[in-house]
Amino acid sequence: MRIVLDAMGSDNCPVPDVEGAVQAAREFGDTVILVGDETRIKAELAKYPTAGLPIEVVHASQTITMEDTPSKIVKGKPDSSIHVGLQLVEDGKADAFVSCGNTGAVLAVATTVKIRRIQGIHRPALSSIVPFGERHVVLIDIGANADCKPEWLIQFALMGSVYVEKALGRQNPKIGLLSNGEEEGKGNELIKSTLPLLINSGLNFIGNIEPKEMLEGHADVIVSDGFVGNMVVKTLESTSSMAFAQIKNVAMQSIRGKLGGALLKPLIGGIRKKFDPFEIGGAPLLGVNGVVIIGHGRSNAYAVKNAIRQARLAVSGDIVNTIRQGLNRPTPTPDQ
Amino acid sequence: MRIVLDAMGSDNCPVPDVEGAVQAAREFGDTVILVGDETRIKAELAKYPTAGLPIEVVHASQTITMEDTPSKIVKGKPDSSIHVGLQLVEDGKADAFVSCGNTGAVLAVATTVKIRRIQGIHRPALSSIVPFGERHVVLIDIGANADCKPEWLIQFALMGSVYVEKALGRQNPKIGLLSNGEEEGKGNELIKSTLPLLINSGLNFIGNIEPKEMLEGHADVIVSDGFVGNMVVKTLESTSSMAFAQIKNVAMQSIRGKLGGALLKPLIGGIRKKFDPFEIGGAPLLGVNGVVIIGHGRSNAYAVKNAIRQARLAVSGDIVNTIRQGLNRPTPTPDQ
Repeated sequence: MRIVLDAMGSDNCPVPDVEGAVQAAREFGDTVILVGDETRIKAELAKYPTAGLPIEVVHASQTITMEDTPSKIVKGKPDSSIHVGLQLVEDGKADAFVSCGNTGAVLAVATTVKIRRIQGIHRPALSSIVPFGERHVVLIDIGANADCKPEWLIQFALMGSVYVEKALGRQNPKIGLLSNGEEEGKGNELIKSTLPLLINSGLNFIGNIEPKEMLEGHADVIVSDGFVGNMVVKTLESTSSMAFAQIKNVAMQSIRGKLGGALLKPLIGGIRKKFDPFEIGGAPLLGVNGVVIIGHGRSNAYAVKNAIRQARLAVSGDIVNTIRQGLNRPTPTPDQ
Repeated sequence: MRIVLDAMGSDNCPVPDVEGAVQAAREFGDTVILVGDETRIKAELAKYPTAGLPIEVVHASQTITMEDTPSKIVKGKPDSSIHVGLQLVEDGKADAFVSCGNTGAVLAVATTVKIRRIQGIHRPALSSIVPFGERHVVLIDIGANADCKPEWLIQFALMGSVYVEKALGRQNPKIGLLSNGEEEGKGNELIKSTLPLLINSGLNFIGNIEPKEMLEGHADVIVSDGFVGNMVVKTLESTSSMAFAQIKNVAMQSIRGKLGGALLKPLIGGIRKKFDPFEIGGAPLLGVNGVVIIGHGRSNAYAVKNAIRQARLAVSGDIVNTIRQGLNRPTPTPDQ
């Protein structure tokens, strides 16, 4: 398997990106193709013992800056690491593309000028993989499409279901529609219009699901529009970060707190991980003609390695073809 | 001041409702009018030394059950505690109505058959008061209106601003529009259409605000549609409940954990409170012709007393008239 890593992706690139690639090449044995500023990548690679490791470097001459908007990048930086990396996938020279860079830019380049969406997919969607309850749950969409139509949400459900089944290895995934109540009649217009379509979709749809049930792991796939999904993921991350930070802060302010904190810290680590996006490393952009995994900008090497792991799982599970086949299943046509 | 309490409101009614009313009458000295099943209320009152306390009882013959939908209650139970209680406010016999009952039913009765909306208000909205950062923040709407128009959100901002200024006593409240990014151009269609109107509203609008900034207390009023607001509040509550429950659970599983937990528990209490809806007790339904405070169904006596406290603050601040006056200020007319 050959996986492209955007070496210019993370906030501290190329440091954690290159280190994560080295770790992944060593641990998984797959070829990692580092794309970006060749000089900087090679200087970084020289820090590690990489003899015999399946690591390649492909140069990309243009660098994306903080000021570049996604639309500027699409047309104005055709030799960015995102363009060059996705081109390798489009040309069949690599099986997957992983980036911890600008999500909007990856999304825009992938959907408009490289690989592009799968024929029949209304809109590709961003997912997030979160360890709720005792297992990983896929949230889709978490930000690609702020305003959605019911038919798009049905496809998000299908794509999420395929990912859980093929990449995460769980049969017949349960699909929940994120809403403010479980009863029919709850939700906004989008939810109310989507509900009957999901019921008749042939997917293993378990109904509307509230944030509490989502966190308890009642469903394997949580479907929402990209605005609500983004709000929910951000609220979840911010709340847990703040709660743990405040506990730590209070614990540091007294002898009593320091002692209690020292005793509890190793026990709490597992809980902290449940809310930690780095644990999974990255999540797939689904609905495009290739495996694309997007990680957090703040990723460290561990997170980069885990993002590459997600790419391996997605390639092994043949998710792109499975989504294509899923679109050909008989599904109800919306009335509108 | 005379405050009506729906004695049949909470999940365990009338037990915590009556106890909270007794506590409020003793602590605040205002008259509390308990409305509901007179026999049950009086039996409950008999448990406490209430001699000399300003407590009255008004009978309501109909009881709301779990099976009653809000629309059934509106027309089918004209002598429910919600109807009778709101009628006292409409008739000027009381200054405020407090209920820990069915939110949808209170909303429906208040907006359609009793007191009704303030003239010029497009849609009344539910708020939530949450102790973010070092101060209380008003979120509006958190569930009354799942689908909103930009003009409605402008009024939510106005009403939230009035509440913070008049009931919570903070001058020139900062308004934030809840979105998935602070930059202009972020958000869904509703957010993008609302942004220019808020900028020109004459309110102290500070721009789009993300969940993280919301939790850090950057704004005094957070505006959103009722669906997103509801999702965000529920995610926040569920995440913090789950995080604290899991910490407690882990702490109980070993001697080490129990010791650490015992040391930290008194220090963490203050943090727990920041995410605890009972601490505030209730939040106002804004935009109707009277002070209406809605508490949690799970309220205990402490939460009920705190909900009555919110009603006192709202009455003292004359929020209904201030909202009315605010509507008469020159505000921009939306183009559409």
